[in-house]
Amino acid sequence: MKIVHTIKEVRDIVKGWKKQGLSVGFVPTMGYLHEGHGSLVEMASKENDRVVVSIFVNPIQFGPKEDFSSYPRDLERDGKIVEAAGGDLIFNPSNEEMYLGDFSTYVDMNGITEGLCGAKRPGHFRGVCTVVTKLFNIVLPDKAYFGEKDAQQLAVIKRMVRDLDIPVEIVPCPIVRESDGLAMSSRNTYLNKEERKAALVLSRSLNSAKEALLQGERSAENIKSMISEILTEEPLARIDYVNVVDSLSLTEVVTIDKSVLIAIAVFIGKTRLIDNFIFEV
Amino acid sequence: MKIVHTIKEVRDIVKGWKKQGLSVGFVPTMGYLHEGHGSLVEMASKENDRVVVSIFVNPIQFGPKEDFSSYPRDLERDGKIVEAAGGDLIFNPSNEEMYLGDFSTYVDMNGITEGLCGAKRPGHFRGVCTVVTKLFNIVLPDKAYFGEKDAQQLAVIKRMVRDLDIPVEIVPCPIVRESDGLAMSSRNTYLNKEERKAALVLSRSLNSAKEALLQGERSAENIKSMISEILTEEPLARIDYVNVVDSLSLTEVVTIDKSVLIAIAVFIGKTRLIDNFIFEV
Repeated sequence: MKIVHTIKEVRDIVKGWKKQGLSVGFVPTMGYLHEGHGSLVEMASKENDRVVVSIFVNPIQFGPKEDFSSYPRDLERDGKIVEAAGGDLIFNPSNEEMYLGDFSTYVDMNGITEGLCGAKRPGHFRGVCTVVTKLFNIVLPDKAYFGEKDAQQLAVIKRMVRDLDIPVEIVPCPIVRESDGLAMSSRNTYLNKEERKAALVLSRSLNSAKEALLQGERSAENIKSMISEILTEEPLARIDYVNVVDSLSLTEVVTIDKSVLIAIAVFIGKTRLIDNFIFEV
Repeated sequence: MKIVHTIKEVRDIVKGWKKQGLSVGFVPTMGYLHEGHGSLVEMASKENDRVVVSIFVNPIQFGPKEDFSSYPRDLERDGKIVEAAGGDLIFNPSNEEMYLGDFSTYVDMNGITEGLCGAKRPGHFRGVCTVVTKLFNIVLPDKAYFGEKDAQQLAVIKRMVRDLDIPVEIVPCPIVRESDGLAMSSRNTYLNKEERKAALVLSRSLNSAKEALLQGERSAENIKSMISEILTEEPLARIDYVNVVDSLSLTEVVTIDKSVLIAIAVFIGKTRLIDNFIFEV
């Protein structure tokens, strides 16, 4: 397993692989890896001859009041996780390597970027689309792996790849959870002991909603109310959004009669956490 | 020489070429080809094993009051020109093949898109960047050829390729002119006999400016006044813009002490024509 920091190094290595006819899987991350990322690298390693993992805390997808500078970083630990999961190359560029001083080109999207996290984080998906386009152009992978925890991001990337004809296959991977149900996230490290306990309210509220759906509830309003009530009972939790949307277009749903995404974002103290599940009727 | 209409067909053919280790040159056009386009295809044919030419009047780069529906089209004639110039494949997609009903992803740029034609044609370069990104992703060329007549477009494409790390080399090609000096353009076909004569004022005004620069004139203001005066003498001409800008950043210049682009856009009757030259101090 090798770590490189420049675009040229990645390109040279990948070019060598392609000359040998090897397939390339790619896992873009912001680092501070956990078992969720590990599962993406493992899946990529199963399905491809070589696996590239990018570790880059992308400044342009953070809002001015968000946690760009405090976002956790630990390249040494990340290297071990990537190696254990079967990764071959880490691309860890500097901001300057990715964004020249007069950088001025962006990839942006209407529609599905506008609700959920997009509504709360203006410019976030422009930053995500732009950096992922750049990374795809640098790594030129056959397949790229994204976690279902960032459900809107996954929908946005799929749409971008379709719309811009990017020659890569997007592979979604299931959410990985701690044994008590909390969805794994690099941001979980922000939580103190009390908040860590309170954060369980996210998966608990979604589990109740899932049960109601399985029992036949089909009103999006009722599902949202049920989730909100459970979240509100937790004093350390503050709801950012609770939503039921079409799982492809991410538009709001009234009656649940097709595949829907039930997605929530909740502040636990100062830490914003997200969780979701897809329900197929 | 073959003509195909679907993305899948292009991809299959190019994949076959790449398997044989052949290099691919690409000339994106809106069709109604003239000798200017011919020179791009010839250059591409000299420098690559295979040449793809796209012919697609891209709806999203036209403003609502612009000439999208009347833009001239003649695929049969275009086919002959491409074949004679050494092209191997024409990609001529429908609007539906390029833009699905819920298409929603765009590539856009700040800065150098905002002056010159960009100021007069809001959304134009967003449309250009988006379609060129798509075409690059479909054709996956080693090199792509653009005419220097669309000077701002060339600067925008170069910047986009740099910013998004698109793995293609952009090759600029010189303006091709009619024997009397008029820069070749598909839109020249709109001109009636009288307008065709009047259109010579564009190259004439630029030639005078070039002479003044060679004689040592270094004031951008004086150069612009000189060009504007000559254009104003022609009763059928109406100035859209006359500008002297840094040839890379396309920002306005006061004193000409580095490489500058002298660019003009002029309506002759209802037809908007552009012309330019680069002056290196």
